[in-house]
Amino acid sequence: MEVKFERLKDNINTLAQIGRQEDGGIYRMAFTPKEQEGREWLIQQLKLANIPSQMDGALNIVGRLENDSNRTKPAILIGSHIDTVPNAGALDGALGVLVALECLTRINEENIQTSFPLEMIAFSDEEGRFGGMFGSRALSGQLNPGILEEATDLDGHALKDVISALGFEPYKALDASRLSEEIKYYLELHIEQGPVLDVEELSVGIVTDITGLFKWQVQLTGAANHAGTTPMELRKDAFMGLADFAHEIPRILDENGSEDSRLTVGNASLYPGSANTVPGKVEFSIDSRDVNLEVLEEIKTACRKTLSAIARRRGLQFDFNEVSVIEPVACNEAIKKSIEANAKKLAYDYKLMPSGAAHDAQMMAKIAPIGMIFVPSKNGVSHSPHEWTDWHHIEKGANLMLNTILDLSK
Amino acid sequence: MEVKFERLKDNINTLAQIGRQEDGGIYRMAFTPKEQEGREWLIQQLKLANIPSQMDGALNIVGRLENDSNRTKPAILIGSHIDTVPNAGALDGALGVLVALECLTRINEENIQTSFPLEMIAFSDEEGRFGGMFGSRALSGQLNPGILEEATDLDGHALKDVISALGFEPYKALDASRLSEEIKYYLELHIEQGPVLDVEELSVGIVTDITGLFKWQVQLTGAANHAGTTPMELRKDAFMGLADFAHEIPRILDENGSEDSRLTVGNASLYPGSANTVPGKVEFSIDSRDVNLEVLEEIKTACRKTLSAIARRRGLQFDFNEVSVIEPVACNEAIKKSIEANAKKLAYDYKLMPSGAAHDAQMMAKIAPIGMIFVPSKNGVSHSPHEWTDWHHIEKGANLMLNTILDLSK
Repeated sequence: MEVKFERLKDNINTLAQIGRQEDGGIYRMAFTPKEQEGREWLIQQLKLANIPSQMDGALNIVGRLENDSNRTKPAILIGSHIDTVPNAGALDGALGVLVALECLTRINEENIQTSFPLEMIAFSDEEGRFGGMFGSRALSGQLNPGILEEATDLDGHALKDVISALGFEPYKALDASRLSEEIKYYLELHIEQGPVLDVEELSVGIVTDITGLFKWQVQLTGAANHAGTTPMELRKDAFMGLADFAHEIPRILDENGSEDSRLTVGNASLYPGSANTVPGKVEFSIDSRDVNLEVLEEIKTACRKTLSAIARRRGLQFDFNEVSVIEPVACNEAIKKSIEANAKKLAYDYKLMPSGAAHDAQMMAKIAPIGMIFVPSKNGVSHSPHEWTDWHHIEKGANLMLNTILDLSK
Repeated sequence: MEVKFERLKDNINTLAQIGRQEDGGIYRMAFTPKEQEGREWLIQQLKLANIPSQMDGALNIVGRLENDSNRTKPAILIGSHIDTVPNAGALDGALGVLVALECLTRINEENIQTSFPLEMIAFSDEEGRFGGMFGSRALSGQLNPGILEEATDLDGHALKDVISALGFEPYKALDASRLSEEIKYYLELHIEQGPVLDVEELSVGIVTDITGLFKWQVQLTGAANHAGTTPMELRKDAFMGLADFAHEIPRILDENGSEDSRLTVGNASLYPGSANTVPGKVEFSIDSRDVNLEVLEEIKTACRKTLSAIARRRGLQFDFNEVSVIEPVACNEAIKKSIEANAKKLAYDYKLMPSGAAHDAQMMAKIAPIGMIFVPSKNGVSHSPHEWTDWHHIEKGANLMLNTILDLSK
């Protein structure tokens, strides 16, 4: 059994028109009228497919194929999100939702009786207008009234005002919470957002883990001095401390990390920042990721030791704030095995790989076994109108999801 | 013979009140009413000392002790500047002018007949409101009408408007130019603006050379990618290219430089600059100095080769602009020997050392042999209300200048 690919393609192209602007980018940010237009379009598609749907309190769209009028069996949820970053491409999030829609539509068309109910879910605000993964946090019971009261976006708009302005009741987001017993599995297809599948010319990836991360904001403080009059050996050059640290990154990862480890200095500010002054202070970010919590802790320890030693050697003061920590999540063995068996059956080349980016699946892991399928991102690009995946990879990804659902719901 | 130190001290304290603000900083920026007030005060002091004075077309104050009514002998000029950076200390520039004033006053009081006329000079705009070393550029014949027409400060004020507003004629700055034959030597006492004398607990430094410099603005361009999904080996991380370069700075200086060489990365900007994105572009400054032009050229070649190799290795594009080049200037042997002999005679501990900062003497070297005496800067600080030199060092520096003038003008 296969997806009807032309229908899926039409749906991708149609949803991509909602929020598309003249610059080619898609602006369907969370809790904007355009995202809401996307929800209404999606409800319309579910109706056309004869799949009953509802919107929950967190503004997640749920389409459910019932197999069991008593509702005693846990459901298999398949989904992703339809909100976008500003100036987005057509696929991030939307692809996973539309593949789920297509799979349920095909199963319904063929009148296949599954042993478990199937649900398509489109989560709200995955991209983080209000902190990220709002809909999946709500569904997995990780919201509380404080979050609803305090969350604001970068422009200072309050989450509760924005939800009210759409005509909904913010506190109902707490009603979206579901029990672990109600959910058998959560499955998500997503673009990789990295270059690995593209470089290796593979159509699909089977996600083994979603990486955890820690983010630090680091400050090294030395002394700002005249770049001409201060001999090299009398300097307390904070920037050179950062350069020393950057030079140690490969060693830190070689000694403590795995092949999945990442460590990135993404921003750095030098003070006072004039060409003829030795930098007296530098502030920079560290973003480090791995699929193993112990490995992450070892990298963290190594960063601390390395920076402390550099600071001592150069006469600098070393301070840092831990800005955030997200624990890694492992994908479920049974789901991975099913995806892999179906990829083999379909004769697709695939790769077992970690996800370096965060996904709704990471939240869903709190209440359900999860599994993810990746399709390639051309040149590793996402969050951009340049984001793309060849149609033939999308078709294979969708068929792999369909076969996996049929297998797991037998 | 000695300076009258209490008078010198009073003059330093009095001039420091002109432009002092509530924050303790001195604001006597070039071509402001406060700098003009400083000029008028200085003319008054010259008058009290019975030294004829005038202001030249570039608003330099010149006080001249004539020894020769036919004016056939070249003069020995001694000076510095009285303009300041914003929020300055009391000594940068002002000290050199007031020491020159004290030396001429003492020589006049004692009615000593020198073989050459002596001139005290206070140059205008050394600190660079309009490009820097304006008065000494004018006097050494390095101005032209284009500079006068085009120069503006950071707030967009035109130099010619600012001079006119003070009641003077901008184009007369071209009249300040003097012939090489008129000037036997140029001498300048200045605070070191670096930590060397302070660290070595010396009262005076004898400047051997004023360093030259080159400034580059460098751009390394790679690819901005997701910090979680992009494996370390598939990155084109522009910041890591900068870190590689910074790591090579000690090698570049060890292989090509001298003990006087400096190389500083004073500013750097990472793009897009978010913690979870691999930096696709970095822009940074290189400021490198040495007293030897060939050494500077070798450092420059090494920087180019190092950055090219790093760019190739990391898949980056390397571009740079040469923002400025200033050639090094050597101090005159006869002057250095005289200063050194007098330091020995006075039993002062001293050090022969280069100047890492630029001075009016650098411009004056175009038309005259130059020499400079340094006094210590506490903790190497200048351009700040924290700028200071112990009074006993100032006294020694002034007496060394007086004895050197008497020696050179015999």
